Amino acid sequence: MDINKYILDVHNFPIEGVTFKDITPLLNDKDAFKYVIDKMVEYVKEKKATVIVAPEARGFLLASAVAYAANCRFVLVRKPGKLPRKVKDVEYVLEYGKGHIQMHVGDLKENDNVVIVDDVLATGGTMKAIVELVNQEKAKVGGIVFLADLSFLHEPDLFKEFDSKSLITY
Amino acid sequence: MDINKYILDVHNFPIEGVTFKDITPLLNDKDAFKYVIDKMVEYVKEKKATVIVAPEARGFLLASAVAYAANCRFVLVRKPGKLPRKVKDVEYVLEYGKGHIQMHVGDLKENDNVVIVDDVLATGGTMKAIVELVNQEKAKVGGIVFLADLSFLHEPDLFKEFDSKSLITY
Repeated sequence: MDINKYILDVHNFPIEGVTFKDITPLLNDKDAFKYVIDKMVEYVKEKKATVIVAPEARGFLLASAVAYAANCRFVLVRKPGKLPRKVKDVEYVLEYGKGHIQMHVGDLKENDNVVIVDDVLATGGTMKAIVELVNQEKAKVGGIVFLADLSFLHEPDLFKEFDSKSLITY
Repeated sequence: MDINKYILDVHNFPIEGVTFKDITPLLNDKDAFKYVIDKMVEYVKEKKATVIVAPEARGFLLASAVAYAANCRFVLVRKPGKLPRKVKDVEYVLEYGKGHIQMHVGDLKENDNVVIVDDVLATGGTMKAIVELVNQEKAKVGGIVFLADLSFLHEPDLFKEFDSKSLITY
């Protein structure tokens, strides 16, 4: 399936000069959505992961279905002020600024085998921070899977220490 | 399954005096997560829905898996500045303040049969706004499904014009 046609380029969003990859048409087509989830589940099973970790909010759009269909636990990475219990916090640099992300302490167990799911790899700042959160909890990053890789925005070997996969590369 | 034990009360979050229902332990247990998604899918199939609509961010945590497993389209309701194309906007009153939510124009088609999925029903402000967005697009609300209903926070017949269901009522 050519999923590229379900991902729209929206120019000058969220700011002038940036072209945003809009994945909502893909979610809004049940066959394209199923195709993408099934491909990600295949990857998760290959990696024998037991936990899916994903960042809000767009990571959740794929990760929930992947966790369900791969029969994995589902652990959240959120922005500050969203997770109600004790958290670990990591600062990161992202495409349009700087931020912090957090994970509940104790949601991951030592040696958990994690696949991290997100929609789009841009500069990789968020994903690096998520890897750090997973590492701080002494769990293992078994793999990273993206729907789309904007490869022109980052060095080619950004995640060379990890197994990673993108369903589409731009 | 007694899913209640996977939902934690966190006192004084996000503000003093409020008790927050933390559903992350449920997501982090693959059997409890599967149980909840399967129950929601059963409801969606009963209603013969073809589209799942859900609000960011916590609605996405359940809706993605429900849409996948029920073989439905998945349409997003988001906060301002998040959806990149032309949107409809509705103002609403919520538990801790006031806000706006948006949906892409044209993501729903006339006569689409929609089930709206969210995690927690509190005052119902967000859900009323979502219903209005669905109505503005001339689609039909075939049902509303919540994981948990905080029934002490709203009038009993809040959504009496619609079929609605909660897996747990507090």
